[in-house]
Amino acid sequence: MSKLLDTINSPDDLKKLSIEQLPILASEIRNLMIDTVSKTGGHLGPSLGVVELTIAIHYVFDTPNDKVIWDVGHQSYAHKILTGRRDKFSTLRQYKGISGFPRRDESRFDHFDTGHSSTSISAALGMTKAKKLKKENNKVIAVIGDGSLMSGMAIEGLNHTGDLKRDIIIILNDNEMSISPTVGAFSSYLSRIITDQHYIKFRNEFKSFLKTIPGIGASVYKFVKQAEESFKGFIMPGIFFEELGIRYIGPLQGHRFNHLIDNLRNIKNLSEPILVHVLTVKGKGYEPAEKNPVLFHGIGPFNRETGEVLKNRAGRPSYTKIFAQTLLDLAENDEKIVAITAGMAHGTGLSEFAEKFPQRFYDVGIAEQHAVTFAAGLATEGFHPVVAIYSTFLQRSYDQIIHDVCYQNLPVTFILDRAGIVGEDGVTHQGILDLSYLRSIPNIVIMSPKDENELQHMIKTAISLNKPSAVRFPKGRGYGVPLDTEIKTLTPGKGEIIETGDDLVILAVGSTVYPAIEAAKQLKNNNIHSTVINCRFVKPLDSELILHYARKIGVIITVEENTLTGGFGSAILELMEEKQIFNIKLKRIGINRSFLEHGSQEILRKMVGIDASGIAITAENFLRTLK
Amino acid sequence: MSKLLDTINSPDDLKKLSIEQLPILASEIRNLMIDTVSKTGGHLGPSLGVVELTIAIHYVFDTPNDKVIWDVGHQSYAHKILTGRRDKFSTLRQYKGISGFPRRDESRFDHFDTGHSSTSISAALGMTKAKKLKKENNKVIAVIGDGSLMSGMAIEGLNHTGDLKRDIIIILNDNEMSISPTVGAFSSYLSRIITDQHYIKFRNEFKSFLKTIPGIGASVYKFVKQAEESFKGFIMPGIFFEELGIRYIGPLQGHRFNHLIDNLRNIKNLSEPILVHVLTVKGKGYEPAEKNPVLFHGIGPFNRETGEVLKNRAGRPSYTKIFAQTLLDLAENDEKIVAITAGMAHGTGLSEFAEKFPQRFYDVGIAEQHAVTFAAGLATEGFHPVVAIYSTFLQRSYDQIIHDVCYQNLPVTFILDRAGIVGEDGVTHQGILDLSYLRSIPNIVIMSPKDENELQHMIKTAISLNKPSAVRFPKGRGYGVPLDTEIKTLTPGKGEIIETGDDLVILAVGSTVYPAIEAAKQLKNNNIHSTVINCRFVKPLDSELILHYARKIGVIITVEENTLTGGFGSAILELMEEKQIFNIKLKRIGINRSFLEHGSQEILRKMVGIDASGIAITAENFLRTLK
Repeated sequence: MSKLLDTINSPDDLKKLSIEQLPILASEIRNLMIDTVSKTGGHLGPSLGVVELTIAIHYVFDTPNDKVIWDVGHQSYAHKILTGRRDKFSTLRQYKGISGFPRRDESRFDHFDTGHSSTSISAALGMTKAKKLKKENNKVIAVIGDGSLMSGMAIEGLNHTGDLKRDIIIILNDNEMSISPTVGAFSSYLSRIITDQHYIKFRNEFKSFLKTIPGIGASVYKFVKQAEESFKGFIMPGIFFEELGIRYIGPLQGHRFNHLIDNLRNIKNLSEPILVHVLTVKGKGYEPAEKNPVLFHGIGPFNRETGEVLKNRAGRPSYTKIFAQTLLDLAENDEKIVAITAGMAHGTGLSEFAEKFPQRFYDVGIAEQHAVTFAAGLATEGFHPVVAIYSTFLQRSYDQIIHDVCYQNLPVTFILDRAGIVGEDGVTHQGILDLSYLRSIPNIVIMSPKDENELQHMIKTAISLNKPSAVRFPKGRGYGVPLDTEIKTLTPGKGEIIETGDDLVILAVGSTVYPAIEAAKQLKNNNIHSTVINCRFVKPLDSELILHYARKIGVIITVEENTLTGGFGSAILELMEEKQIFNIKLKRIGINRSFLEHGSQEILRKMVGIDASGIAITAENFLRTLK
Repeated sequence: MSKLLDTINSPDDLKKLSIEQLPILASEIRNLMIDTVSKTGGHLGPSLGVVELTIAIHYVFDTPNDKVIWDVGHQSYAHKILTGRRDKFSTLRQYKGISGFPRRDESRFDHFDTGHSSTSISAALGMTKAKKLKKENNKVIAVIGDGSLMSGMAIEGLNHTGDLKRDIIIILNDNEMSISPTVGAFSSYLSRIITDQHYIKFRNEFKSFLKTIPGIGASVYKFVKQAEESFKGFIMPGIFFEELGIRYIGPLQGHRFNHLIDNLRNIKNLSEPILVHVLTVKGKGYEPAEKNPVLFHGIGPFNRETGEVLKNRAGRPSYTKIFAQTLLDLAENDEKIVAITAGMAHGTGLSEFAEKFPQRFYDVGIAEQHAVTFAAGLATEGFHPVVAIYSTFLQRSYDQIIHDVCYQNLPVTFILDRAGIVGEDGVTHQGILDLSYLRSIPNIVIMSPKDENELQHMIKTAISLNKPSAVRFPKGRGYGVPLDTEIKTLTPGKGEIIETGDDLVILAVGSTVYPAIEAAKQLKNNNIHSTVINCRFVKPLDSELILHYARKIGVIITVEENTLTGGFGSAILELMEEKQIFNIKLKRIGINRSFLEHGSQEILRKMVGIDASGIAITAENFLRTLK
């Protein structure tokens, strides 16, 4: 069957189609997306929601000369398919395949690498100003979701946009759903705009009505005209944006081609900052995704017919689930525990907590900075806030962790889910900097569990501390180990000896402990006997234990799923320097490259050498060089 | 002369005064402030502007049970004077004296440590929610400036505020001046509110007028009533806040006691999220400060009579000035250079650049996140943005530096002024984490000059690199060294041998190079001969040079004005580990404590042991232990 999509190798080909053909194309694109993502996993819901919008943008605008910046970038699948990456689309998110996010090194149609939320307006504004300086006239378009728009940096961008009065188009993709349902007053405001549509009609009727009143009516009308500036709320639904100096247009129906294309054509001719409010449905065109937008936001492989997620590794609970269950249990008996997330109630496993303790749960939306300082405020009043944010997104709160939590030594626990290698989401989402960025902050206790059972105890331990703490754990499932029924408090700063041997000390933490144990087994086959220590705490270190074995054996390997710069291994180097122990032979294993692209966790861990055989090989080579 | 202020030891004493006595008190407080700050330096302008407001808040509310959170905190002098710290006020910002910012450990009237901008709403909201959970009814009040309110995290806080619908009072202290004049569309919006006051009067007149029209008038009035929701822009000036679910009250005249107190008393009885818009004049009551609010925002010691800043160390230009002058010179011949700052045009020295190249200068307001990603956008179009933000404030942009600049390897130069020990501003402003937080980010080149002459060359070097770079330099003046007339490009990753000697290698960088040279002199008197290397680059290190001397001499001391955790010394430890050089005796000198309080740079540097004699003593002791 010959398909329309097969003829589209670039937006130029797209422009040859009639508007009537576009719905067929949209359907074919959706088909390819659903088919691919059912095998690869990915951000299906967001990308399904903007198929018409993406087609309309490329149909109307002169891309890539006109530039489109996709905020967060997880909605860019149709864009990729339309811009020469149709045939590679089956490699989506796979190692060496195309990325799930826009990448400048992947296509000349990708103008800015996105992955984290709310960067598009700032980047687009920078490009707009650059074009102005270069006297170029092409358009720059930022496409941003309603959840992302209310994140702090997006508003900083809007504020500057309204000030500069430059030619920039911001498309607000409003699906009333960021990742979790959008929260916050701004979301209610957008809903009001949509329901307030009849006021526009009413205003026109009112004006006509006034004019019909002889004498008096005309003067009232003039009165109204005079007051037009402050009358805007009555005339225009987008007053929030208008007050910031940005022209509001909308709301537009995001799945109607005629309507979208007509409006975008008009907008193309305007020269001022414009916000176009487009209504879309997340998961549009695939019933399971429309029905369950939270699940289909980012999903693993699923059965295309039923929409059911394919189960694998049955019986092994995810770290996320164990964290959530533990917190729920602890919160039953401790009223001081409150939980905070930033637009990720589902992803961080906190949905059940939210149901059970609605008064003690806060999803603040995509507002990582506010989440942390809000937690600090709660902590000053005697509560123990648990802030669950993915490792990579917590980078947004770096200053607040320092300034509002740690400098004041407040009891806030940070839960860094998806720490370490996250796999298919790739470079922007890898959580491989957190040990480095947290470690240099004063007062914070940092721990990482070797498995899901230890995670339970660490959650309790963190909450028992009357100071800042962080627990980092990997994306994905645990090892299926038995779970202790009694959750206990670990001694802060104390590690665990797993195995003893006289040739080598392997210091591991978190996700690298089991691979280290397995490596020790492999080494034993070659007659190398290792002491394996699960350090548990990256800060404070178990100095006593580590120094004892360091002095006794003199050869150390450190293993971490974090960048080697300033990470766990560096903490061990610093410890040796502090104690002025100079005769130790030490080798660090960890992530030693600028970027870690997308690909499965397994492939990437192997690639950087933190899997069991990688550790064993490095250890053997290291010992050989010492001979 | 007996003074009213002498009788005020707490807000309870204040409440005994009549409203008529308050202006006298205000005048006495101003007098104490001006007198003190003329000797100690400090944030005079902001604190002068809120004297009446501070008195009114403590007069009306039940502090400390009602809690006041001072955003940024640099306007808290009157608050400190009124809450038991009058007699200690002369120790302001001095070592062991009272802090220039609110500190929880200083007074039970200080509820949240502030220093960085825009945290107050989030913290206050956390406290409000905590009080709700604890069923307490006291008020929580955030006092925030107009510049700070438009920073991202403040808006995240507003969004959550409007959503929670809790009892919280946000006082917008609008002086149309954050540190530099406030920029952005939001600022224009606030100005419009102020000038639009007559519309309120107009609306009432209009309503009365409509009602007078027999028959028709009443129906129009009903019509208008029906549309009240979207008619808000006409009725209320604070539509921006109202749309976010926050009741707007104002603008109030911030220097009229009757007016302020009456309104605050009414507001005290309301139970909903409220934003009170108060107009104040920065520097109020001291003519030199009113005339020059930018200078008097934060000022050193000055002549009280004339308002002239006291000159010291004449002839030694500040690092800030040398940076600014160099950039100006380079920009003359390079159209690709654009300069960006975040509300700090004066502080970063860029005012002249702004005048000379208005099209290539952007002050984005207190919006550090946007500033960095905006720069990234400009960089994708071939420009070389130079982003000048103080070290401590750049922490706000941590994620943007990683995600938008460094992962994309874009040519953006970060200028970290006030890096290292800043002195009197104290713990929240110390720039002692930047080497650690920047070093683990891929692709970035990090350098720090030994003096103001080297700074010139580093600015040029940074701009010559087609990748991310950072130049960090200290607050204050250089050494008065001759300035090369020809600015040159340094070889990236190459250090400078300053002195050779066979007993010890001292690796220093930035502000510690001269103290290291002086320490080497002192050591020579004790017959210890040092090789002193100015490393210049913290990343990439001059591995060749460092390894050569490391191998040759075997004893190394590293010196840095940064935290020891993950900093420059750790980079040297990592280098030795990478090269598997195990026989080196290494000792790191740097900042080895959780917090660094306020006090002069000189005192603090001595305290942490990074002054010349501190380095010499550590070196001697170190060598002794090795014998």
